[in-house]
Amino acid sequence: MPRSIRQMGPSVIMDSFLLRKSIEHFLREDTGAGDITSEAIFFPEQTGEAVFIAKDSFIVAGMEMVAAQVFKIRNPEIETNSAAADGTTASDGDILLKIKGPVLDLLAAERVALNLVQRLCGIATFTAKFVRKVRKFPVRIVDTRKTTPGLRMLEKYAVRVGGGHNHRFNLADGVLIKDNHIAACGSISRAVNQIKERTPHTFRIEVEAETIKQVRECLDCKVDIIMLDNMDIPTIRKAAKIVNGKATLEVSGGVKLKDIKKIAEAGIDIVSIGALTHSAPACDISMRFSASV
Amino acid sequence: MPRSIRQMGPSVIMDSFLLRKSIEHFLREDTGAGDITSEAIFFPEQTGEAVFIAKDSFIVAGMEMVAAQVFKIRNPEIETNSAAADGTTASDGDILLKIKGPVLDLLAAERVALNLVQRLCGIATFTAKFVRKVRKFPVRIVDTRKTTPGLRMLEKYAVRVGGGHNHRFNLADGVLIKDNHIAACGSISRAVNQIKERTPHTFRIEVEAETIKQVRECLDCKVDIIMLDNMDIPTIRKAAKIVNGKATLEVSGGVKLKDIKKIAEAGIDIVSIGALTHSAPACDISMRFSASV
Amino acid sequence: MPRSIRQMGPSVIMDSFLLRKSIEHFLREDTGAGDITSEAIFFPEQTGEAVFIAKDSFIVAGMEMVAAQVFKIRNPEIETNSAAADGTTASDGDILLKIKGPVLDLLAAERVALNLVQRLCGIATFTAKFVRKVRKFPVRIVDTRKTTPGLRMLEKYAVRVGGGHNHRFNLADGVLIKDNHIAACGSISRAVNQIKERTPHTFRIEVEAETIKQVRECLDCKVDIIMLDNMDIPTIRKAAKIVNGKATLEVSGGVKLKDIKKIAEAGIDIVSIGALTHSAPACDISMRFSASV
Amino acid sequence: MPRSIRQMGPSVIMDSFLLRKSIEHFLREDTGAGDITSEAIFFPEQTGEAVFIAKDSFIVAGMEMVAAQVFKIRNPEIETNSAAADGTTASDGDILLKIKGPVLDLLAAERVALNLVQRLCGIATFTAKFVRKVRKFPVRIVDTRKTTPGLRMLEKYAVRVGGGHNHRFNLADGVLIKDNHIAACGSISRAVNQIKERTPHTFRIEVEAETIKQVRECLDCKVDIIMLDNMDIPTIRKAAKIVNGKATLEVSGGVKLKDIKKIAEAGIDIVSIGALTHSAPACDISMRFSASV
Amino acid sequence: MPRSIRQMGPSVIMDSFLLRKSIEHFLREDTGAGDITSEAIFFPEQTGEAVFIAKDSFIVAGMEMVAAQVFKIRNPEIETNSAAADGTTASDGDILLKIKGPVLDLLAAERVALNLVQRLCGIATFTAKFVRKVRKFPVRIVDTRKTTPGLRMLEKYAVRVGGGHNHRFNLADGVLIKDNHIAACGSISRAVNQIKERTPHTFRIEVEAETIKQVRECLDCKVDIIMLDNMDIPTIRKAAKIVNGKATLEVSGGVKLKDIKKIAEAGIDIVSIGALTHSAPACDISMRFSASV
Amino acid sequence: MPRSIRQMGPSVIMDSFLLRKSIEHFLREDTGAGDITSEAIFFPEQTGEAVFIAKDSFIVAGMEMVAAQVFKIRNPEIETNSAAADGTTASDGDILLKIKGPVLDLLAAERVALNLVQRLCGIATFTAKFVRKVRKFPVRIVDTRKTTPGLRMLEKYAVRVGGGHNHRFNLADGVLIKDNHIAACGSISRAVNQIKERTPHTFRIEVEAETIKQVRECLDCKVDIIMLDNMDIPTIRKAAKIVNGKATLEVSGGVKLKDIKKIAEAGIDIVSIGALTHSAPACDISMRFSASV
Repeated sequence: MPRSIRQMGPSVIMDSFLLRKSIEHFLREDTGAGDITSEAIFFPEQTGEAVFIAKDSFIVAGMEMVAAQVFKIRNPEIETNSAAADGTTASDGDILLKIKGPVLDLLAAERVALNLVQRLCGIATFTAKFVRKVRKFPVRIVDTRKTTPGLRMLEKYAVRVGGGHNHRFNLADGVLIKDNHIAACGSISRAVNQIKERTPHTFRIEVEAETIKQVRECLDCKVDIIMLDNMDIPTIRKAAKIVNGKATLEVSGGVKLKDIKKIAEAGIDIVSIGALTHSAPACDISMRFSASV
Repeated sequence: MPRSIRQMGPSVIMDSFLLRKSIEHFLREDTGAGDITSEAIFFPEQTGEAVFIAKDSFIVAGMEMVAAQVFKIRNPEIETNSAAADGTTASDGDILLKIKGPVLDLLAAERVALNLVQRLCGIATFTAKFVRKVRKFPVRIVDTRKTTPGLRMLEKYAVRVGGGHNHRFNLADGVLIKDNHIAACGSISRAVNQIKERTPHTFRIEVEAETIKQVRECLDCKVDIIMLDNMDIPTIRKAAKIVNGKATLEVSGGVKLKDIKKIAEAGIDIVSIGALTHSAPACDISMRFSASV
Repeated sequence: MPRSIRQMGPSVIMDSFLLRKSIEHFLREDTGAGDITSEAIFFPEQTGEAVFIAKDSFIVAGMEMVAAQVFKIRNPEIETNSAAADGTTASDGDILLKIKGPVLDLLAAERVALNLVQRLCGIATFTAKFVRKVRKFPVRIVDTRKTTPGLRMLEKYAVRVGGGHNHRFNLADGVLIKDNHIAACGSISRAVNQIKERTPHTFRIEVEAETIKQVRECLDCKVDIIMLDNMDIPTIRKAAKIVNGKATLEVSGGVKLKDIKKIAEAGIDIVSIGALTHSAPACDISMRFSASV
Repeated sequence: MPRSIRQMGPSVIMDSFLLRKSIEHFLREDTGAGDITSEAIFFPEQTGEAVFIAKDSFIVAGMEMVAAQVFKIRNPEIETNSAAADGTTASDGDILLKIKGPVLDLLAAERVALNLVQRLCGIATFTAKFVRKVRKFPVRIVDTRKTTPGLRMLEKYAVRVGGGHNHRFNLADGVLIKDNHIAACGSISRAVNQIKERTPHTFRIEVEAETIKQVRECLDCKVDIIMLDNMDIPTIRKAAKIVNGKATLEVSGGVKLKDIKKIAEAGIDIVSIGALTHSAPACDISMRFSASV
Repeated sequence: MPRSIRQMGPSVIMDSFLLRKSIEHFLREDTGAGDITSEAIFFPEQTGEAVFIAKDSFIVAGMEMVAAQVFKIRNPEIETNSAAADGTTASDGDILLKIKGPVLDLLAAERVALNLVQRLCGIATFTAKFVRKVRKFPVRIVDTRKTTPGLRMLEKYAVRVGGGHNHRFNLADGVLIKDNHIAACGSISRAVNQIKERTPHTFRIEVEAETIKQVRECLDCKVDIIMLDNMDIPTIRKAAKIVNGKATLEVSGGVKLKDIKKIAEAGIDIVSIGALTHSAPACDISMRFSASV
Repeated sequence: MPRSIRQMGPSVIMDSFLLRKSIEHFLREDTGAGDITSEAIFFPEQTGEAVFIAKDSFIVAGMEMVAAQVFKIRNPEIETNSAAADGTTASDGDILLKIKGPVLDLLAAERVALNLVQRLCGIATFTAKFVRKVRKFPVRIVDTRKTTPGLRMLEKYAVRVGGGHNHRFNLADGVLIKDNHIAACGSISRAVNQIKERTPHTFRIEVEAETIKQVRECLDCKVDIIMLDNMDIPTIRKAAKIVNGKATLEVSGGVKLKDIKKIAEAGIDIVSIGALTHSAPACDISMRFSASV
């Protein structure tokens, strides 16, 4: 069961610079030359209050850190409060966020804020389903680089809110030797040596293995992490026995919710799942104005 | 059934400036300070050939206009060809795109290109399901502003590839009077008059109606488009009879695939569906290098 | 006679994001590496008060929304107040804006603020001349896309302040079928059908007609707006009789102040005039420091 | 009489970086989300040829350096040629520029290119009127910082094409001590000393004088340039006699075409005129497609 | 001996816009996707206090104007105070700046702030060594364009703090005729005439002379500033006698600390030294947290 | 002895996007509104040839990858060739790079290109001095985050050219637990556990130890890398004996050239040296035109 981000500890890489730049860009995309409907109806000084409401049951992610920021970036005078904490479970009808400020700005930011948090709550909720299934095992559910272009930081944050962990943020912050690299070097050991020689000493070395033979080669050259790529459950079990703690073991490739427990039972340390970010269904949230607009 | 973009005609708003800026941003996000693994393995001058392969059956969208561009923006010397045409149907194992160039650049662009087209093909395929159901009716399936922030242009393009049409691109290029606007003005007719007085004469005026009474009010003040918001099928039928061609009729709000035919039969002109863009499942595509890397 | 923007209602599309970005860019252009004269004379903490003064009689546009913003964007600590309301008439010697803050910042923002409002007041004043001539007719004076590159939003705002209305903001927010489009399709009706088939249902369709024959073709295919392009007054009258309310009628092409009343009398709905923005003479405004600097 | 830029020599500060950035911004402003009309009519691969035609008589400025660049920046595959040389005189009907390429790109760049060159030709033509009046005198007609925000480089270029010279580009590349600076320091000599002490030795020092007394003070402290601010012709003559070559003399402030010769006769070196850039009427130019589109 | 910037007067060209943009860029460079170590340890709301401490003796430059700004730009809620004044001398162990705010932000800004001020203090200190040597002579020590790309404004500021003056900021704000220009024109006088004809009247004209013969040519055509390029001391003396006040004299080219006094004694006005910015050794400064983090 | 980059293998993280953006920014900084001297002397079409010449003996770094790029980014038509290979040794008088193209562009790019490569050659040369001293030991010389803001990628590249290796590029691509982190958690083991729990599994964990006691604690909690911070040689030796291969050992803090061999002899794996980037003296390189300009 996902805990609130508070309980999880402070592990929140959500750089405020990058976040602001992204939100400004998203607002511009949706605003175009301005909201021609609302600007013909409302005076700039008219203010109003609105709430975000859950229309479904799900894990909350991003109300304070994302949705509230969208409004504040649109207009710093907008006040937000009572945001549902990240990691808590919302039920249909729950108020998730209160917002107060110029009506024109509330309307200009509404769609961007909703589009973002509906997706983030979806990812947190979907991640939590995997996490719950294996909560008794010492296994991590991690994401991949299969995120929506432009939203990686936000989506990886949502994975953590759902109880998952993160894999590489980009090509620069992790070493992952794949089949192409191995083919180019001629063998796993040559590829590993070349990496050891040339990359900073701060990285662990991860190698993708497609066969038991390759798993053994990885062990021979003291790889830190072995990624078992698209193996079936029996082969995963076999690999786990062979490795037996001598390297961190990661399973990857089309992992389904129904199989996750079996994989955990096989003694795997890490399961990486692209679907966490590319196929999580969006949650249903809507914005409602108080009567008094 | 979706036609190729060729058959559909040239209606493709895909501004090359905006596309380039977005792709540069996406590449930077995934690249970080550089691909530490590949740059330790390959020399800059090593070239290779790769293909994008379908791992599933789906409607193709964006191979030439998006995926190929990602590679060319990463390095203009990369050659691409034989892209599957947008709107055609791909089967498991089909080659969708061929790419040739420096291995380092192919690897640096791979993930961004895949992340984009898997989503775009997903949207086109999902849209086509709705379009097929109503192909015998004079009804348009259209998208909404519920797109992924930062990807609106691309996602609206994919909707068209799937046989759908587009609603507003942003708040500036269409008038849509909603409940808040009506409440602020006191009545539909006042809101409509205010809009007529103040917005450019080039826009048709669309009003959201939640009841039959509001539909009648819309007719009274000669609204161009009436959006029936979250009405059940019987109410939709009733509204259609009342309107009887005196305004364009749009249905919106949680429309499901199973209901789309009934809505079309009721004589509706437009059905707008947020799920086309926020809930289309991603398609499965992978990149494979030729042996010779 | 132009009313204050207050009387006109809230129709003000002046997106705060875009405005800020533009002003930052303009300030950088005029500042270069810094004001070498003033920075050798004044200490950063020296403050002063200044006023903008009219040196002429004209319609005010942009004191609060533009000039004051330039100062605040240069330095958020600058205080501005008592700005003359947009749409009011200023006489020689009138104080238009009061500004208070660090002298270095007042001087660094002065020229940009003046250059902008001198132009905006000029456009509002020039527009008001046309509007006054036809105030008894149900005709709109509208602008075109012949605006100064980089200043479209500001200049279209000034047109509204002068009592005019706006035509398209850009190529994306209005359909206008011109001679090239017609030639490419073979006939007006084919061009119109192609547009109806492919563009969002939210746009009205405008077609440029150069002859009475084309006006009739437009009526035949139920065009929403017919633009009479560069026709003489008698032909305009003839076109208006033929159309007789079956479409919105717009006159365009080198319209002079002396002809505007005759055009209005012919029963035209819209007159679009490029000169409003490309040839309005700048107004004369200067900044004066209070004695105490 | 203005000479072609060729005859004038190479003095053309038109930085290619800055120009490209500006044009990209202008194109984006006019394009919005894309040209919805043309993109529904033309296929991307349709090409055409068009020409820019003079509808009036004027001095050409910017056909090659600006208009042609707009098209090339929109799409590098557009070919341009036969541009009328800067500084030559065009007559009604003259072809100014030939352009060839994809129709969609020609149409997307048309308005921006025209809006720019109509203004630049206007400035060159207006400048040339002043220059012609004083061609027998050793006097320079120069511009000011009263340029259109965002267009300074382009407008100052047009002034040179018309035979004028440039004053400061921005606050960083020239020293100009004005009344506020003098008041803050207590006297002209103190202000001048402070500047001499603190600014780079590469700048000449210019001081604004409003009275004959101030002119004498300027001479006393060996100012390089004295700007006679808003003086009438007799006072200008008197100042010129007093200065008698001991400093460069500049006249500024509301200079009219009818007075320019008298000012030159008084022995002035420089006349700076804000109207060159803020009040030059735009020239009339249009784009026409060849029959074959 | 360098005075505090207060004593030096306000001559500080440090444009706040440019500074902010640069610092944002530097922070992004060092932050990447976020501080993975600290964000796993500290909660966002944990605050702390830290100090910058001198580990050496040097001239302070940039504590308030640069280091404090880095922290405030990272997070405007960070409080800074008690910054050592620019131009004062710090000793080993001195506290230079106090900072208070969220620990995560203090750590994220630390390295950028230190990297900047260590360099700036180094430049001020190195400049002051030259300035001290010639304090009895009416000579200016000035910098060159040999600054670190991206840091020109900051480094030129540090030169002033050390008691030096600035030469050109960029190619646009000063005229410097070098050997290539002279060769292209055929002679110094032709080059000078061409410049006089074409550049704004606000610039003094500087010419690089490599021989006594060229110095005489410079005098003949009334150059404002003569730069003696890479001459030995005797030749410099000879040149100074010939010029004898008829032009400003600048010495340039590999000037060493040991020679500076002899150059000053020769009667030179300006000595420009590239080493001030490209070879000043960095000072040693560190950040220390108070116990209570 | 440094090898050419060819011999070293392909380990070159020099992202082409980031490089281009940086160089464009540097060019803008030095260009300002344009080169007023050269643009008054040369016609745009005048071409010339120039060479970069070593005025000293040093290790070459960045001729092809940086200097040549600066020219090409200024104007893609500039041809460059015969660049001295990175890692080779240049002697006084050696030609390092040949450049050919429009004189105006050669002059506009000259200073930026020189300022960059003088610094990069300096860093490579300084790094090589350390590397040579320990060439017989299995020790890596690595850089730190003490790089010039805005130049990190370039400077870290130069370190590799000199035979060194890289430490973290930014706060996101390596875990380094310092005293503040330890203090905040209460103990090394708690800090390490917290990191293990929260950061991606792809990172090795490095901890800064200031005492032998802390070294033992690091071993107890199986840290991957122990950084011996500011220890004297005897303590370093003691630490190395204790660790005895059970962790990677890094020495950091004010390491001098004279001490590097003793540190290597103690059995250390990594020596990180901030001075490589913050205190390497610039090399002397100049650009000379061929006679024919």
